[in-house]
Amino acid sequence: MSTMEPVLAIDIGGSKLAAALVGKDGAVWRRAETPTPRAAAEVVGDALVDLSARVSNGEQPTAVGIACAGPLDIAAGTVSPVNISAWRDFPVVELLRSAVPGVAVTLVGDAIAAALGEHWRGSGQGSQAMLGIVVSTGIGGGLVLNGEPYLGPTGNAGHIGHVSIDPDGPTCPCGAHGCVEVYASGPAMVRWALEQGWTGTDARQLTGAARSGDPVAVAAFDRGARALARGILATSLLCDLDRAVIGGGVAKAGDLLLAPLRRHIAEGATFAFVRRISVHTTALDRDSGLIGAARFTHLALARS
Amino acid sequence: MSTMEPVLAIDIGGSKLAAALVGKDGAVWRRAETPTPRAAAEVVGDALVDLSARVSNGEQPTAVGIACAGPLDIAAGTVSPVNISAWRDFPVVELLRSAVPGVAVTLVGDAIAAALGEHWRGSGQGSQAMLGIVVSTGIGGGLVLNGEPYLGPTGNAGHIGHVSIDPDGPTCPCGAHGCVEVYASGPAMVRWALEQGWTGTDARQLTGAARSGDPVAVAAFDRGARALARGILATSLLCDLDRAVIGGGVAKAGDLLLAPLRRHIAEGATFAFVRRISVHTTALDRDSGLIGAARFTHLALARS
Repeated sequence: MSTMEPVLAIDIGGSKLAAALVGKDGAVWRRAETPTPRAAAEVVGDALVDLSARVSNGEQPTAVGIACAGPLDIAAGTVSPVNISAWRDFPVVELLRSAVPGVAVTLVGDAIAAALGEHWRGSGQGSQAMLGIVVSTGIGGGLVLNGEPYLGPTGNAGHIGHVSIDPDGPTCPCGAHGCVEVYASGPAMVRWALEQGWTGTDARQLTGAARSGDPVAVAAFDRGARALARGILATSLLCDLDRAVIGGGVAKAGDLLLAPLRRHIAEGATFAFVRRISVHTTALDRDSGLIGAARFTHLALARS
Repeated sequence: MSTMEPVLAIDIGGSKLAAALVGKDGAVWRRAETPTPRAAAEVVGDALVDLSARVSNGEQPTAVGIACAGPLDIAAGTVSPVNISAWRDFPVVELLRSAVPGVAVTLVGDAIAAALGEHWRGSGQGSQAMLGIVVSTGIGGGLVLNGEPYLGPTGNAGHIGHVSIDPDGPTCPCGAHGCVEVYASGPAMVRWALEQGWTGTDARQLTGAARSGDPVAVAAFDRGARALARGILATSLLCDLDRAVIGGGVAKAGDLLLAPLRRHIAEGATFAFVRRISVHTTALDRDSGLIGAARFTHLALARS
């Protein structure tokens, strides 16, 4: 594995682009990020290549691991992130192959990368069946089963944000009713709190209000946590989970989210094998995706 | 693999015990079954050993594969099937080790065995991510991911019958609300139809009534199919399924169940990767579990 050091890891999201050199042990050597340009496809691509050159700083990485917001077409190496409107079927793998010639380039969904990073070096260590959840503007998820990321045949496994928990629930932009995301994403919790008379603008303020004991803000977290719990319980019944790790902006609320989440899981877990799950927040914070992208590269190259 | 021929396969359920010699290609050489005795633990055990001796007929099997209704303790080799009240922590692996000395004995859940059998030789062939469902007195499930049974760390993966699809749904014996099983099992469909004024006694009669166009019976199948569809959709979002295979007594209703099931899945599938799932009934009928138990033995011994 000494030839696997360092990997150039890239994490592409709607609000920021991040890159880092990651050592074979998961240590982040150099890291940089920049806001995702609201601009033409090539401008976003140029920003990513510049960022990569900046962290590489003349050093040749042994491989490139890309984590990217979905949807992705893994086989084609192209991406169409919902929140990067300029990129539709954008050939991000080809872009990095040109920028860093002669090394392997892998591509994986950002939520799966985050789960894998936490499993390797964060709150998921030692888990045999883990669900990683990113609670942010939307809700993403990734499964790590038997120590390996479970991607599914099309790379879309782990879509917990769109598991419906109530057939009579609010309509989701996806078209279904009662998806976990329409209760538990940051904007969804804010929207519900505003409907109940809370006055504020975003999830960070809602967290502050809940911390000060504002009853509507506390109730918004409880409602979101209940939906998340129902999604986690379904995943546990199907995948026999021993661990769930919550990351993303909303997870910064810490116990404001975790306490009601653990309570709702305990209330709904009627089988011993489901009750054994432990729930944690991310240990690697915003580096989960970068570290997971590097790990994904290690696993892919070890298999090839 | 020529040393793997034949496997003595055993399928233990609340209503019947079945045994067969299964060839390395999945062919069932000799098969026998007997009603599960409502009697003391040893009487049930003796019936199983007698059945095994009958199908072996003096021939020495190369291994024994047991599929059994849950819950199981795989590590201990013991079983406590809900519907065999005399067996609590019953050492079924030890029993078969004594009855067939000198060969490996494996144990797996009956729903996982059924899924694996269908994947190997039935309606699941070629699937990369399959859910097998047994719709009977209860509802069991098993996942076959990347060609391998996914058991989960405790062997309980695939528990689709207890995924809750409605927080305000009827109470399930498990203690949760709105489990798939309280809508879609045979007894659940019959109970609901009786409440709506249908007069009959069991799922077989309900199937006949639905086939004759009885509107309450048709509605009972539709209601059950809707619940099953919601459970399958959740599993697809989480596990990126390409196939679902339905077996068990209720699946004998065929298109009476499959037509509304496919319709509800199509209505609820809002992502392209979810829409690609195809839904089938079992091809191996009551042999799914036996053939899957034999396959599980092949896989376990190939790995050891």
